[in-house]
Amino acid sequence: MTTAGIDRWSNLIPMRETERITLDDIPALARGCGVLGTGGGGGVEGSILTVARALSDYGDVRLIPLSEVPDDGLVLPLSGIGAPTVAHEMPMSGEEALPIAAEAERIFGRPVTAVMASEIGGGNGLDPVAWAARLGVPLVDADAMGRAFPEVQMVSQHVAGLPVNLIILADVQGNLTTVRPVDGLWSERIARAVTVACGGSALMADYVLTGKEMRGAVIEGTVSAALRIGRTVLGSTEPVAALRELLDAKALITGKVVDVERRTGGGFVRGSLVVEGTGADRNRLVRVEIQNENLVAFEDGEMRACVPDLITVVDAQTADAISTESLRYGQRVTVLSWPCDPLWRTGRGLAIAGPRAFGYDLDYIPVEKLR
Amino acid sequence: MTTAGIDRWSNLIPMRETERITLDDIPALARGCGVLGTGGGGGVEGSILTVARALSDYGDVRLIPLSEVPDDGLVLPLSGIGAPTVAHEMPMSGEEALPIAAEAERIFGRPVTAVMASEIGGGNGLDPVAWAARLGVPLVDADAMGRAFPEVQMVSQHVAGLPVNLIILADVQGNLTTVRPVDGLWSERIARAVTVACGGSALMADYVLTGKEMRGAVIEGTVSAALRIGRTVLGSTEPVAALRELLDAKALITGKVVDVERRTGGGFVRGSLVVEGTGADRNRLVRVEIQNENLVAFEDGEMRACVPDLITVVDAQTADAISTESLRYGQRVTVLSWPCDPLWRTGRGLAIAGPRAFGYDLDYIPVEKLR
Repeated sequence: MTTAGIDRWSNLIPMRETERITLDDIPALARGCGVLGTGGGGGVEGSILTVARALSDYGDVRLIPLSEVPDDGLVLPLSGIGAPTVAHEMPMSGEEALPIAAEAERIFGRPVTAVMASEIGGGNGLDPVAWAARLGVPLVDADAMGRAFPEVQMVSQHVAGLPVNLIILADVQGNLTTVRPVDGLWSERIARAVTVACGGSALMADYVLTGKEMRGAVIEGTVSAALRIGRTVLGSTEPVAALRELLDAKALITGKVVDVERRTGGGFVRGSLVVEGTGADRNRLVRVEIQNENLVAFEDGEMRACVPDLITVVDAQTADAISTESLRYGQRVTVLSWPCDPLWRTGRGLAIAGPRAFGYDLDYIPVEKLR
Repeated sequence: MTTAGIDRWSNLIPMRETERITLDDIPALARGCGVLGTGGGGGVEGSILTVARALSDYGDVRLIPLSEVPDDGLVLPLSGIGAPTVAHEMPMSGEEALPIAAEAERIFGRPVTAVMASEIGGGNGLDPVAWAARLGVPLVDADAMGRAFPEVQMVSQHVAGLPVNLIILADVQGNLTTVRPVDGLWSERIARAVTVACGGSALMADYVLTGKEMRGAVIEGTVSAALRIGRTVLGSTEPVAALRELLDAKALITGKVVDVERRTGGGFVRGSLVVEGTGADRNRLVRVEIQNENLVAFEDGEMRACVPDLITVVDAQTADAISTESLRYGQRVTVLSWPCDPLWRTGRGLAIAGPRAFGYDLDYIPVEKLR
């Protein structure tokens, strides 16, 4: 399972973009993770500071392909869980990865070989660099989504049919909870309940697997893809156009944010966003519905794009992605959409993260086939 | 810390009541646990069947004093957690203790030496007999409450100042969750959230400690006390009078249940009960407030008894305890109250399980000093 499997996506990752992640890479990685975050995964602003401090304190982080992880090497896939609106106001200390790694090492009886981002989108794509630095291990150039998703079971290991063996949660208070759920849906229910009890935000290792088990069950090259996206945007005088070309993305609308509804509860932020078109898009309205991430875009009651395809709201001038908790009335934006990794378009992928998995009574239609 | 420390309580446990718990002991043990349950700990009816089956299948269970557990012997304190109203309709399979014991053995690297009831009250005092039989280990003649309490941190190990090292939860679906909380209050928050996520009822090991750590931190002799209470009631032609004499209990009122309010949510059952006096108690009304267990009894706005002292509603004829989920309009009852184990009357004991710990703006007054 690799992003190279679909033509329009493959141009993102012709090769690894770097051998080491250094302080100089942070701006590009942050921009790229923001774009892949589809509004979620947590804002990148706090993560930029966390990663900068970790790289200063502990040195650069090696970025390695999954093939470099030995068959029995233990990979720790880390991400935040909870409502980004909460994480935004209750940032992690950066120390939460240590008890999680210690617990994994205690359970498996051997050291952690590498860290991986569970989701490359948003701050969750960036923070693993800090945790890899803190733990003194390499970062795997891969993730389990190729984007961000709100729920625990929405990961490639679950699509690949691996039983969820272990979830480890740490919160800012120092509580450590280990879950051995019977299946993916129970993993979400229990991990979410623990997260809400711990204040609405926690750090999580989801599916702690060996290199051998990870092969074919994660999306490879996505850290490089995020770096490439960031470098393209930062290096262009017309960043939105450059981004559209790189991603082969549709612009659903360009205009002004005229309505933002957002409520935080049950460990998620939910709501919607309305963009009123300007210029060539005058007299048009596009509404995007949100559960941590941007889920579905509607215009005149018709679906224009939906999960698992990516929908990201970017600043119309800078192409900087705007996370769902940072949306504000009056922002000038372009709403972009482009195809997800092909694994999400399989029957099992759509069952796990298609529109019906989010409660929509809608059949999935690939964004490139929609008006 | 032993129940022998208070005169009025010491007559309950002059010696161990038995060396082995057999099928013949179940009726007396069930009656005694019901009385010590203060309305909670789960009804004993289902537990009688579970224990009878386990003793038939796996043989009698040795009842040992804590002194027989070696210093490094691992004691597994087990109890149900959740709303008794849920447990009543979603009984445990009896197999939930196996993954909990296996997890404890994996974590500590040695076999479980003995099972203990976390709370001697209600079904939670009875079920550990089944789990000890199932696991093939003895039952320790002790518990962590000397009664039943609704919350995870309301245990003698917490009063003794031991840090809560480990909580292990198993549900009927097969999910296994391990919590290493930073303190007792977090243990309750997280374990309760997991329990609610798992449907409102689960089996829990709370404070998995060695024999050495348990010494002085649990209430010894309470299985014997429950047996003695049950045998006294079953052997008397005037069971309520015999029970009052044995416990040196006050009868707060004898009369008819005229109002029962009960709501289940957040992993608890809460509500209240009103008894209208009959006979000598005519023209009196006593109201008892409930959170799983009977918490406080009021008459004419005045407190008549409160936690941590025990308040139990018994059938006025048979002295059979009536659990909070079995209260019904029209039942003829006597409301009894008697002193708790002295550990709960210490400053720390009252902070953990006195009326203020349950949200009442009331100072604790020992039941024997109240009208």
